[in-house]
Amino acid sequence: MRIGILTGGGDCPGLNATIRSIVRTAKTRHNAVVIGFLDAWDGVMERRFIDLELDAVRGILPMGGTILGTRRGSPLDHEKGLELVADTIRDLGLDGLIVIGGDGSLTVASLLYQQINLPVVGVPKTIDNDVMRTDVTIGFNTAVQVATDSIDRLYTTAESHNRAAVVEVMGREAGWIAFHAGIAGGATSILIPERQFHIDEVAEHVARRHRRGRYASIVVVAEGARPVDGCMEMPTYARDAYGRKRLGGVGAAIARALEDRTQIETRLTTLGQVQRGGSPNATDRILATRFGLAAVESIASGYFGTMVGLQHGTMMNVPLAEVAGIPRCVNLDLYGEISDVFFG
Amino acid sequence: MRIGILTGGGDCPGLNATIRSIVRTAKTRHNAVVIGFLDAWDGVMERRFIDLELDAVRGILPMGGTILGTRRGSPLDHEKGLELVADTIRDLGLDGLIVIGGDGSLTVASLLYQQINLPVVGVPKTIDNDVMRTDVTIGFNTAVQVATDSIDRLYTTAESHNRAAVVEVMGREAGWIAFHAGIAGGATSILIPERQFHIDEVAEHVARRHRRGRYASIVVVAEGARPVDGCMEMPTYARDAYGRKRLGGVGAAIARALEDRTQIETRLTTLGQVQRGGSPNATDRILATRFGLAAVESIASGYFGTMVGLQHGTMMNVPLAEVAGIPRCVNLDLYGEISDVFFG
Amino acid sequence: MRIGILTGGGDCPGLNATIRSIVRTAKTRHNAVVIGFLDAWDGVMERRFIDLELDAVRGILPMGGTILGTRRGSPLDHEKGLELVADTIRDLGLDGLIVIGGDGSLTVASLLYQQINLPVVGVPKTIDNDVMRTDVTIGFNTAVQVATDSIDRLYTTAESHNRAAVVEVMGREAGWIAFHAGIAGGATSILIPERQFHIDEVAEHVARRHRRGRYASIVVVAEGARPVDGCMEMPTYARDAYGRKRLGGVGAAIARALEDRTQIETRLTTLGQVQRGGSPNATDRILATRFGLAAVESIASGYFGTMVGLQHGTMMNVPLAEVAGIPRCVNLDLYGEISDVFFG
Amino acid sequence: MRIGILTGGGDCPGLNATIRSIVRTAKTRHNAVVIGFLDAWDGVMERRFIDLELDAVRGILPMGGTILGTRRGSPLDHEKGLELVADTIRDLGLDGLIVIGGDGSLTVASLLYQQINLPVVGVPKTIDNDVMRTDVTIGFNTAVQVATDSIDRLYTTAESHNRAAVVEVMGREAGWIAFHAGIAGGATSILIPERQFHIDEVAEHVARRHRRGRYASIVVVAEGARPVDGCMEMPTYARDAYGRKRLGGVGAAIARALEDRTQIETRLTTLGQVQRGGSPNATDRILATRFGLAAVESIASGYFGTMVGLQHGTMMNVPLAEVAGIPRCVNLDLYGEISDVFFG
Repeated sequence: MRIGILTGGGDCPGLNATIRSIVRTAKTRHNAVVIGFLDAWDGVMERRFIDLELDAVRGILPMGGTILGTRRGSPLDHEKGLELVADTIRDLGLDGLIVIGGDGSLTVASLLYQQINLPVVGVPKTIDNDVMRTDVTIGFNTAVQVATDSIDRLYTTAESHNRAAVVEVMGREAGWIAFHAGIAGGATSILIPERQFHIDEVAEHVARRHRRGRYASIVVVAEGARPVDGCMEMPTYARDAYGRKRLGGVGAAIARALEDRTQIETRLTTLGQVQRGGSPNATDRILATRFGLAAVESIASGYFGTMVGLQHGTMMNVPLAEVAGIPRCVNLDLYGEISDVFFG
Repeated sequence: MRIGILTGGGDCPGLNATIRSIVRTAKTRHNAVVIGFLDAWDGVMERRFIDLELDAVRGILPMGGTILGTRRGSPLDHEKGLELVADTIRDLGLDGLIVIGGDGSLTVASLLYQQINLPVVGVPKTIDNDVMRTDVTIGFNTAVQVATDSIDRLYTTAESHNRAAVVEVMGREAGWIAFHAGIAGGATSILIPERQFHIDEVAEHVARRHRRGRYASIVVVAEGARPVDGCMEMPTYARDAYGRKRLGGVGAAIARALEDRTQIETRLTTLGQVQRGGSPNATDRILATRFGLAAVESIASGYFGTMVGLQHGTMMNVPLAEVAGIPRCVNLDLYGEISDVFFG
Repeated sequence: MRIGILTGGGDCPGLNATIRSIVRTAKTRHNAVVIGFLDAWDGVMERRFIDLELDAVRGILPMGGTILGTRRGSPLDHEKGLELVADTIRDLGLDGLIVIGGDGSLTVASLLYQQINLPVVGVPKTIDNDVMRTDVTIGFNTAVQVATDSIDRLYTTAESHNRAAVVEVMGREAGWIAFHAGIAGGATSILIPERQFHIDEVAEHVARRHRRGRYASIVVVAEGARPVDGCMEMPTYARDAYGRKRLGGVGAAIARALEDRTQIETRLTTLGQVQRGGSPNATDRILATRFGLAAVESIASGYFGTMVGLQHGTMMNVPLAEVAGIPRCVNLDLYGEISDVFFG
Repeated sequence: MRIGILTGGGDCPGLNATIRSIVRTAKTRHNAVVIGFLDAWDGVMERRFIDLELDAVRGILPMGGTILGTRRGSPLDHEKGLELVADTIRDLGLDGLIVIGGDGSLTVASLLYQQINLPVVGVPKTIDNDVMRTDVTIGFNTAVQVATDSIDRLYTTAESHNRAAVVEVMGREAGWIAFHAGIAGGATSILIPERQFHIDEVAEHVARRHRRGRYASIVVVAEGARPVDGCMEMPTYARDAYGRKRLGGVGAAIARALEDRTQIETRLTTLGQVQRGGSPNATDRILATRFGLAAVESIASGYFGTMVGLQHGTMMNVPLAEVAGIPRCVNLDLYGEISDVFFG
């Protein structure tokens, strides 16, 4: 058996643990050849790859990042992209390609499976946790911990100064990190894309706490949080040189609006890239190990065009077509259930 | 509504987060009175308790330990224990008692429900994760992280010295911490109570690695790990002044046996109480928050004699009688599935 | 003996450890009465304070923030400020006042000593480490560690994406955090207020690394870093509602300028308030303990108008007048010595 | 210029950071050839070494352990050891050899300098911090932090159970880790080799606290702590297969003696090897960087037979002969000064 691997999209903690698990499973159980494409789809199109022997994955379990590199971008954006991918897979004699990626990479994988019958199996990874048909993605649990640690730190400084703190975390389409880190950090309010907020309500809630003698309020904001139309000024996103919308702005606008309305000094912290990097925690290492193992067995069983997903504790194969293009959102029932008690 | 709380058995990370969640839910939704009994069942029998207002639980979310104190011991060991408990509950006019405990405390709660119809609801907590009918207990995830961090540290020192390291972790009846931290830490072998080990196999496995040029081997041992009869000398447990079996000895015996058989220098680390203490991680804080909320609703709904349990992501009420007295063990299928790949 | 304490200026890790040390020393050695003024000088002027018995400081050693609260602002800004302070000290019969503060609070203390002979002893604390006549201030070591942990995380994500990362850390007058965390994190360049940078040099340095095949560059920027005049556009600081210059902008401008010049994708992280909060590390707890002890002895010895400072490992008393108003800067010799090797 | 490096004795955090600093300094400033001997003196005698180019040290700054491996043992224990060392140095044309080691390795280095004029420069590293003529050694600060984190965890669990905890930390000749981590962790008592303890005093102190209503006592014990003769039973050390005295026993004996005398349940934690491993903290990375740079300059200047040492913040060269064979002990004045207040 010959297997290829690539890591696509934004990096996250646990990619190396996944690669290690794939290589160990492939070697130990199937005596397979494993190659790792460099820099995501670029490496497939340009035939840049490395052999992945057991020695190559020694010691990488706790390491952040990915030894294969990652890029955004897709073969579908290149004129001859599909052809180049198909040629590489055929010429290298690969029986299967494991794509470790988020919504973007998995959507590409799904299209390539449909269009050129690429023998692909997906592994869901993204700190945003917004992939359909799996309860959790690689990297999410670590990102929540990093954000929670930051909220803990902000809490003590806000309390000492009788201030409010706005913390902007990642989550453009879905508010998973904000919701989980907000609960874990004891946030006063959590603003997520799934549910529009009215700034006056948030401000009144914060002001009421401080009037009652509380000394710190923490408002956790997902970068995709949306106010009710017209209730406050919001930044218009700029696009960078690469045509991507740039982060930032939401948290700053909310911090300014809160300070204006409450007269309580309000500081902004934008966590940014620190949520992505660093060593995966134990939960993510175990998840990565299980996903990697399942991906190899999926290739061996010929379950192409699927993604491995964890559903209620059980490892499943789900069609990539059901995953692609739709973000998985925070369950508003759960949000509602908890919110009256904990953000009150 | 009037609710009592106690924390029983060994302490673990997340007890204070649970207490906070109970108080906030009870106050916000039910305008209830909440009292906290001190030092577990002792406080119930001796009527030592504190009022738990919102202010009492402010800031305790990230704190380790329990503000209520905890003790081992049961009213069933006292001549008038049952009577004293019943009197306290009646005289204080409590509608329900939430018992946050492990297997021991929950068994006591089950018996009291059966014998004196105590209006009790259980919340499962123990770093050992060995409570039936719930996928996970409060404190377990943090303990796994602490053990994994230690294994990471031991790995670098073992590698620098071309040594083996034996790490003894908690788990007398079940090997949950050993299994999870072993996977997360990249252990060479994991020895758990659920599956007898033969020391010669472990030794041969370690020796083979070092002959192949690997420089470090980590053997993770649950304190209840059991060798195949006669394959090695094991310590006979001493009992302490309180009649409890004392930890220690298993790891030391294994370290000695490994060094004798492999001639590879082998160092022992017994993690002990550090696994219990300290701030709960994000996963445990969220779990504690959800369990606390569910426990209050269970009291409000009159689901007495039950425990709240998390099953496949859903919060359930399960009869305490089905939980009491039986440890939940690691699934040997899962162990077997992973073990050929990762401990080979 | 009767002693007052206040914590002034921005909070930092180790304030509570200092308060604990003062109380324990004052009680154990001098059987003194200790009171803690709330919210810095406001508490002195408004006679808001709490009794600090041994029980009040139990368990606060590892806690971030300050149990006394802190505010910016000075009695010198109030018409009757001096009078109010003098009255409070006299009416409460205080033999001495310990001011735990940074450059701002210590300057106020110095003036009050000169103008109304306030029996004051200063303790230097600030994460910025920019207080004269002491080798180190409380909070600095922890802030460096927090910044270093963040750089470690950013390094793996930058490397996976072949990116540059700009990290803006605190330091308006002096670049201590940037310099230390930059060395500890293996930064590519460190930009500090003490030494003007030319953006083209920084850009060329980063570009050269990536041309040589390096996959990540980290530029650490103190918020007070200054470019050579005219070499790049810099933000003009806005002032907030309180008249203070607001953070931010420097890092963003540098990130933009680097990306423009190198065509390497460059991400900005502004650490902000997380550098201030959270539990002090071991070094800061020990330092706080020693400073607190020395401050009490200074009061007992009547060394008023001084600050306790650590000079080459020895605890000294230095005149506040020599400390006030002048920031302590990074030694450019040391910067130069290391920079050719480590930022090359 | 041609330089050799070896890391000797027990490993500690910061060895890789030192190696990186040496290589970068040697390459950048002196265009030197650098080779790294494997497994300490064994590698010198057996001519096992690797070339250390800049690429070889990329990314190792935050890594624990040593890429060169380390062993105990000395050329002086081999019949032809001196000759083999001299031959290797001469045949490889080395201008200098940097020995990164603790008291043992530095003593060997001193003797080799005296006996065969080995062009050696020492760099002091040991978590024990017991090297003469330097204020601090590489690895110490990280070890103190690891021990302090453990004490924090133990404190919460001890408090929940109204227990005492005994924590045994490293330090056979000197009690540096115990003293610093004890202060930082808020220990009740600290027992170090430099000062004999009477077990009855310790027990009475613990008992008095608990009678006064305190719920936790932490006794930090260096492994070399010594009781006043006859006041309690102490273990007699066993020797292992390698003839070394083995750790353990002191803490256990003290825990048992305390429990017997106070009737307070007392748990033992022996930190062991976790103190040695893992990523160096920021302080140790900076120290390692400075030491490595100074060592290369010492070779370049021909300061052979010396060790680089940090004295009152300044990097100095001190004769190895003044360092060898004598452990640096905790200053009992400082111990005494603090102990009445903080262990009372």
